[in-house]
Amino acid sequence: MPASYTYLGPEGTFTEVALRTLPETATRELVPMVSVPAALDAVRNGEAEAAFVPIENSVEGGITTTLDELVSGEPLMIYREVLLSITFALLVRPGTTLSGIKTVTAHPAAQPQVRNWLKAHLPNAVWESAASNADGARLVQEGRYDAAFAGEFAAARYGLQALETGIHDAENAQTRFVLVGRPARPAAPSGADKTSIVLWQRDDHPGGLRDLLGEFAARGVNLMLLQSRPTGAGIGNYCFCIDAEGHISDRRVAEALMGLKRICLQVRFLGSYPRAGGGPEDVRSPLPGTSDDEFMSAADWVARCQDGRF
Amino acid sequence: MPASYTYLGPEGTFTEVALRTLPETATRELVPMVSVPAALDAVRNGEAEAAFVPIENSVEGGITTTLDELVSGEPLMIYREVLLSITFALLVRPGTTLSGIKTVTAHPAAQPQVRNWLKAHLPNAVWESAASNADGARLVQEGRYDAAFAGEFAAARYGLQALETGIHDAENAQTRFVLVGRPARPAAPSGADKTSIVLWQRDDHPGGLRDLLGEFAARGVNLMLLQSRPTGAGIGNYCFCIDAEGHISDRRVAEALMGLKRICLQVRFLGSYPRAGGGPEDVRSPLPGTSDDEFMSAADWVARCQDGRF
Amino acid sequence: MPASYTYLGPEGTFTEVALRTLPETATRELVPMVSVPAALDAVRNGEAEAAFVPIENSVEGGITTTLDELVSGEPLMIYREVLLSITFALLVRPGTTLSGIKTVTAHPAAQPQVRNWLKAHLPNAVWESAASNADGARLVQEGRYDAAFAGEFAAARYGLQALETGIHDAENAQTRFVLVGRPARPAAPSGADKTSIVLWQRDDHPGGLRDLLGEFAARGVNLMLLQSRPTGAGIGNYCFCIDAEGHISDRRVAEALMGLKRICLQVRFLGSYPRAGGGPEDVRSPLPGTSDDEFMSAADWVARCQDGRF
Amino acid sequence: MPASYTYLGPEGTFTEVALRTLPETATRELVPMVSVPAALDAVRNGEAEAAFVPIENSVEGGITTTLDELVSGEPLMIYREVLLSITFALLVRPGTTLSGIKTVTAHPAAQPQVRNWLKAHLPNAVWESAASNADGARLVQEGRYDAAFAGEFAAARYGLQALETGIHDAENAQTRFVLVGRPARPAAPSGADKTSIVLWQRDDHPGGLRDLLGEFAARGVNLMLLQSRPTGAGIGNYCFCIDAEGHISDRRVAEALMGLKRICLQVRFLGSYPRAGGGPEDVRSPLPGTSDDEFMSAADWVARCQDGRF
Repeated sequence: MPASYTYLGPEGTFTEVALRTLPETATRELVPMVSVPAALDAVRNGEAEAAFVPIENSVEGGITTTLDELVSGEPLMIYREVLLSITFALLVRPGTTLSGIKTVTAHPAAQPQVRNWLKAHLPNAVWESAASNADGARLVQEGRYDAAFAGEFAAARYGLQALETGIHDAENAQTRFVLVGRPARPAAPSGADKTSIVLWQRDDHPGGLRDLLGEFAARGVNLMLLQSRPTGAGIGNYCFCIDAEGHISDRRVAEALMGLKRICLQVRFLGSYPRAGGGPEDVRSPLPGTSDDEFMSAADWVARCQDGRF
Repeated sequence: MPASYTYLGPEGTFTEVALRTLPETATRELVPMVSVPAALDAVRNGEAEAAFVPIENSVEGGITTTLDELVSGEPLMIYREVLLSITFALLVRPGTTLSGIKTVTAHPAAQPQVRNWLKAHLPNAVWESAASNADGARLVQEGRYDAAFAGEFAAARYGLQALETGIHDAENAQTRFVLVGRPARPAAPSGADKTSIVLWQRDDHPGGLRDLLGEFAARGVNLMLLQSRPTGAGIGNYCFCIDAEGHISDRRVAEALMGLKRICLQVRFLGSYPRAGGGPEDVRSPLPGTSDDEFMSAADWVARCQDGRF
Repeated sequence: MPASYTYLGPEGTFTEVALRTLPETATRELVPMVSVPAALDAVRNGEAEAAFVPIENSVEGGITTTLDELVSGEPLMIYREVLLSITFALLVRPGTTLSGIKTVTAHPAAQPQVRNWLKAHLPNAVWESAASNADGARLVQEGRYDAAFAGEFAAARYGLQALETGIHDAENAQTRFVLVGRPARPAAPSGADKTSIVLWQRDDHPGGLRDLLGEFAARGVNLMLLQSRPTGAGIGNYCFCIDAEGHISDRRVAEALMGLKRICLQVRFLGSYPRAGGGPEDVRSPLPGTSDDEFMSAADWVARCQDGRF
Repeated sequence: MPASYTYLGPEGTFTEVALRTLPETATRELVPMVSVPAALDAVRNGEAEAAFVPIENSVEGGITTTLDELVSGEPLMIYREVLLSITFALLVRPGTTLSGIKTVTAHPAAQPQVRNWLKAHLPNAVWESAASNADGARLVQEGRYDAAFAGEFAAARYGLQALETGIHDAENAQTRFVLVGRPARPAAPSGADKTSIVLWQRDDHPGGLRDLLGEFAARGVNLMLLQSRPTGAGIGNYCFCIDAEGHISDRRVAEALMGLKRICLQVRFLGSYPRAGGGPEDVRSPLPGTSDDEFMSAADWVARCQDGRF
């Protein structure tokens, strides 16, 4: 029995395409699930080795279902991320022409991405939402709608034809996916990593959040994401999901986390993993005084002072 | 022709209930709209005086559609906010008993709030989503489902009966709504106000966001909300929606905004308005050195120094 | 009766040389005084227009007598500064050779500057202190000592000869002098100015001084001097004499001073005046967001927001 | 041969009185030296075990000679400090009355402390400076002056009589002395300690010094002294002598020093030693998040995250 990865289904969506970019999927069973919580629960209860779910997209921002699942419940850890550019194809039954399209469908999340294209090319077509882009393609196959917006890769699966490809309103439309498992030792640094955590403030006062961010700033650690999520304790009560540049084995990241652990009500570590979309050449040099060597020689110097040898 | 307020429809939802708590609605025409953008567009193009829409809830966090509408497009301004506690009633046709309920419906947003109640009391009922809670009630009236979760106030409108009231999973479940209009002079301070803005960072570097928050902290201005939203420039590019304690006519708030205006790429002012859920007695005293008097006498002192009279 | 400037006497010292570099001294009566307090008191009580006194030197640091006089008592203001490089000449009666020198004299402050030269060239000479370098030269003239260290300019006055010039142990030995008067409107900005103030902290807590310096840092104002002086309230109680880059009519300086005025127990303004030793070409460009234009357009923007016109 | 302590002589001064408050002086040879550098050089070259010198007084501030000696040259370490209240006695030959005093003497440093008393009680007496207060007493003994200001303890030594005691202009006039030795392991924490260091900035830019102080502030470490001293690299170039609350074996102090070591050009450790003038009851509680326990459990938590066990 092969180890299995769950993912946010159904089959034939962008999530599956992104997942299959990971080489190890060749030797894993890939199991589509009906929801992000279902995909993650399978990991939490030991049925799956890992789950692959969207966590952020460039149009909608953080995927709140995924963030809220990672923020609470049994701790999970992020091991990998994948960035996928999102463009749509207009899928039709073979033979359909543009002028023959009266109805179109897709998942509601596709709408902001194709709205302008629709206005320009099919101003009179009626839109109806589908449960997923893959489901929309299936409904076109069954003849219920004339056309569906979906990934081009879905055409083959449903016997459809791409009348138009590369449709996207926002330039650089991308979705970020993460591979999530149970906690274990993070992979060694790749040279271009990021670290994800969740912070809960100890109390609320002027400068409170500024001081938390100061723990990163004082060590030259750059932030890549700051997303607030309600704690459930009532309106205006938030925790913060943060992605920081660097790996927890980097001294500057480790020390920033120690500082946060001391001054926060709670800190949850969500993993250190290679950054998608950028290799070591995209990593900025550490600011003066924040390299591992400088941290180590500073610690060594303090130890020698404590000992009277300096 | 009376002035009109649009709101996120349909009729008979929590939004309408919250809206009707504003006294001036007695003399306004209230017009339900199919979406937040539709409600706000009516204000932008002059068809309505103001729009009333949800902006934050204690379970889901910021309402991204509303935030994204306020962040971009023609500037709008928030004039009022309303906090409403959200609890559900289980609405049935008169005569239905708990044991007779096989199917239930409601808007998907209601699900996290009633999930535990359902497990405990109707573990075998089948859930189907409705376009709105009001729509769910209508479908029960029509006999399509046995029961709907909705506000208790919807029972009368649809000739239904509340079999159970006060259903909510999260304690303190609340939604915050705002009344939005075209820019004009903000109302005078009420003594317990908040100020909403949107910030775009000039560039991205370690400590960048910490420095922005430092403009508030240095003047003792407390933050009530920090919500990141994608700018549309690609993954990882965010602007920040911020609610701060105080009114733009408070010197400490005004000076913090000036500081942000200088160091940010862009700042959008979204209004200063009375806080819901807290009167002047809930407002903390200004930190030493941050009262209006202290700001004014400091400015006066510098003017005298510039003039050689001190 | 010409207006008079007092200065730290006696005649024939570096102070007088520095004072005479100011063009207006051609039309002033220059009056040597026995001490810094005496020179300043003459200004305070209206007998003199201004006083010229040393305030900092590169070997000894701040001249505490001068700082303490400016920190307390009737307010005074700095109008000009002069930087003078300090090198000594070895003055002897005509005909004296190096080998004939058994005794040398000078003001004690000269000793650290000539110690190495003495060791190398006159290892056996006996040193005795004089009340001033000028007084030392006079005593050589009278035959009491064989040689005096003094400014080369003193040779002519006392009929002596410079056996050696350019003597100085520390490279870049310089003294900074200031011209001090009663408070009046500071001169207009020269393009390369500095501003002097004194700060008293409101209370003593972790981060207190950091926050004071933060008022400069947040507006991109660089510090050129930070000198603590006892307040007289017991050991460990200090006020801070600070020189900052820029002129009080620069918006970034003015706003930093306002911030300090609010959060400090007390702030004393000591003047804005042209920097010696550096023209406009040595002034760094303001950091992004800290130019006068940016301050003014930010203030204008806030005013428009307060008014609803944006 | 007993171990010896040098001290700033001559005998019979406040320095000797302060030194004798240390119990171990009963078993040490106490050797007066002509200057602070001489006292410290004897330690540096191994002739003495330790040197006892003044470092700060409440009227004059930091004793620059002592600070400059500690800042440069072979590293030394502070092991103890002593606080002594400074009040003067007016010493005369037996039989002299107040009306018979025409001339008075003392070290110049005494003058600011007795000036008001002189004005009130001996307005016509002529002041001449002595090389030390003890020397002044000796000159009275020899008949050269009528009276000397000195510590009351000097009366017996010189066969004089105290005509008046407790003379002091500034309330709380105190001098702080330190016992300095070669580097060795600091004494264990006493519960009320301080730590002395010297900092050299890496470069000079807006916010540079604020960031250095931020390393203390972020860990809740309070500063007790900040004294700038010229580096010798020309006017405006300073290093900073800092006394911080706490012991280098306190985690918050150790980590602040590590941070400074990384971002400074240079840091010199001058010792951790018991505070004079304040026992454990005067030590403020650590700010939330800055106790040793919190530092250790934060470090432990990061180690577990790095290991995947959390």
